[in-house]
Amino acid sequence: MTNRFSFTIHASSGKARTGTIRMKRGDIRTPAFMPVGTAATVKAMKPETVRGIGADIILGNTYHLMLRPGAERVARLGGLHKFMNWPRPILTDSGGYQVMSLSDLRKITEEGVTFASHLDGSRHLLTPERSMEIQRLLGSDIVMAFDECPKIEQGRDAIARSMEMSMRWARRSRAGFDSGGEHAESAALFGIQQGALDAGLRRESADALRDIGFDGYAIGGLAVGEGQAAMFATLDFAPAMLPEDRPRYLMGVGKPDDLVGAVERGVDMFDCVLPSRSGRNGQGFTHAGPINLRNARHAEDTGPLDPRCSCDVCANYSRAYLHHLHKSGEILGAMLLTEHNLAFYQQLMAGMRAAIAEDRFAVFAADFRRDYFAGR
Amino acid sequence: MTNRFSFTIHASSGKARTGTIRMKRGDIRTPAFMPVGTAATVKAMKPETVRGIGADIILGNTYHLMLRPGAERVARLGGLHKFMNWPRPILTDSGGYQVMSLSDLRKITEEGVTFASHLDGSRHLLTPERSMEIQRLLGSDIVMAFDECPKIEQGRDAIARSMEMSMRWARRSRAGFDSGGEHAESAALFGIQQGALDAGLRRESADALRDIGFDGYAIGGLAVGEGQAAMFATLDFAPAMLPEDRPRYLMGVGKPDDLVGAVERGVDMFDCVLPSRSGRNGQGFTHAGPINLRNARHAEDTGPLDPRCSCDVCANYSRAYLHHLHKSGEILGAMLLTEHNLAFYQQLMAGMRAAIAEDRFAVFAADFRRDYFAGR
Repeated sequence: MTNRFSFTIHASSGKARTGTIRMKRGDIRTPAFMPVGTAATVKAMKPETVRGIGADIILGNTYHLMLRPGAERVARLGGLHKFMNWPRPILTDSGGYQVMSLSDLRKITEEGVTFASHLDGSRHLLTPERSMEIQRLLGSDIVMAFDECPKIEQGRDAIARSMEMSMRWARRSRAGFDSGGEHAESAALFGIQQGALDAGLRRESADALRDIGFDGYAIGGLAVGEGQAAMFATLDFAPAMLPEDRPRYLMGVGKPDDLVGAVERGVDMFDCVLPSRSGRNGQGFTHAGPINLRNARHAEDTGPLDPRCSCDVCANYSRAYLHHLHKSGEILGAMLLTEHNLAFYQQLMAGMRAAIAEDRFAVFAADFRRDYFAGR
Repeated sequence: MTNRFSFTIHASSGKARTGTIRMKRGDIRTPAFMPVGTAATVKAMKPETVRGIGADIILGNTYHLMLRPGAERVARLGGLHKFMNWPRPILTDSGGYQVMSLSDLRKITEEGVTFASHLDGSRHLLTPERSMEIQRLLGSDIVMAFDECPKIEQGRDAIARSMEMSMRWARRSRAGFDSGGEHAESAALFGIQQGALDAGLRRESADALRDIGFDGYAIGGLAVGEGQAAMFATLDFAPAMLPEDRPRYLMGVGKPDDLVGAVERGVDMFDCVLPSRSGRNGQGFTHAGPINLRNARHAEDTGPLDPRCSCDVCANYSRAYLHHLHKSGEILGAMLLTEHNLAFYQQLMAGMRAAIAEDRFAVFAADFRRDYFAGR
């Protein structure tokens, strides 16, 4: 039990913190960015490359995996880690967000969500109890409570009702997780704060979660179209409502400047499809801002994608070559740009961790923004 | 000049030979299989992985590269090796075959072939001289003479006229290559025997090529739909018409059993898109024959793709996982299956080289066929 889950904060700088989460499958250095491995693969990357760029933990999507290949099948095959050849920690989401954004014919009741698969139209019911069971069958290291992520434009009353139901679901998630036997003794469970942009609702949600008790706490319901200013305004108060000594995870975020601003406000963990999805679409992140490799101006550029990047892609390939691969629709173009983008994100996290350890985060953040927005 | 090109035969077993081609960018162990890197990438593989599975040399396609990114552009960017991060030998074809199979609006004259690009419809003229120039601009290590590959059903007269023109083009290729200055002093030039299935025409073609003189000799015009029996019948006499002390390269071949049968008949080099294209389409090669990973019978198979294979894919992933990736259309599915298939081919070549060195090729070939066709 001693190596089930611990979080140690080594240093802080302003509200920013750096620390280590210890779990049986490995340590997670925070602030941490988790590459998204939706369907049991971080798209276009071999797992050893994901590890090679410095990722300590990846994310798997319950919604996708329950539909294909199926949670029971993954369990019969020995669990998600063995299936996808990733021996380190995996965090799985609860399926709630993707059910709302991807599936057809959704019906939400107190019991859970009934929906039709986007793959074959088959009907499914996802409840807090079933979400816990699926995440247990997958063998998840960090299990997320099942919640509803309401649309931000619904208004305070609807958001309040949704948050209150999510808190009842959080309690059912806790009970479902705790009844998981051996898995509950080795994995961790995170609750998810809701309440959109409203400080009062965020406070109510945080209090409900603290009352139940979780290993870590996520900030949900952001990065859903409210814009960076509104997100940062919410992050000015939301993290401090959550227990100081537990990791805080901002779900589905974000752009490099989002990460810096969120760490500045006390967030410890992130996940986002942006670096990998952008990589497949020809967008590369650099210290001087994002660039589109498909643009003709890169066609004869022998320089690296980002001269300040230490990844293998920047060491061995030119912008001209990446341009050629993306113009030609070559798989290697998606592979190399995904690798670079995720390496860029890991380097950004490592830079933030070092700056926090040396209590110079404000200077790091100012320097980052100066360079990143210089081209604007 | 001493390290420009040499071919040493170490051992033979029946008609099969094993040896080493030495060039300034590295050694090529024969019999050799060259992965195809059409558009400056072996599709879905990083170059270090291509090397890691044992490839000594890859092939680049003049037709694709002249159209995109363009030979002059590749030259300005420092040549194909630097562009694609492959420092070892590259063989480039002449463009003749792809012009006939891929482009639109072809017109063949004694001068060369006028065609329209399959990418944008732009008009181009490819001649022996221009083909040599393009291969020089790319920085090719083994340059192929420009030839015409006639359809096998055209009849003897048309094939004879085509072969005779290809021999005149071979002489012009030799002259064009030799006028290439520094490149001609470091690269090698191979001639291509034509004549379809006709022993008389193959003899005339071989004599014409020997008269011109080349570093190596390819057998062209096969694997174009004639079937394995007709191909083997031709290979019963064609290789022996070519100089004994020079490498013999059978272009565009083939299936694993094609390779074994061709080595058995005295062939030293091969290239084919089959292992990489099959890999992207879900077909995996094994010692017990090819299998389709998309088939539902693999969905819960925890075993490796090929238990006799020593590649990283077979060491770390199950058939069930490969099935899932290919059913889900994941890029990693193409990556892993391409890697396995090309590793399987390299292991097959290594097995043949060892069997020849120990003068037990007939037994090796019989064992291979027994296992490979056991499932039929």
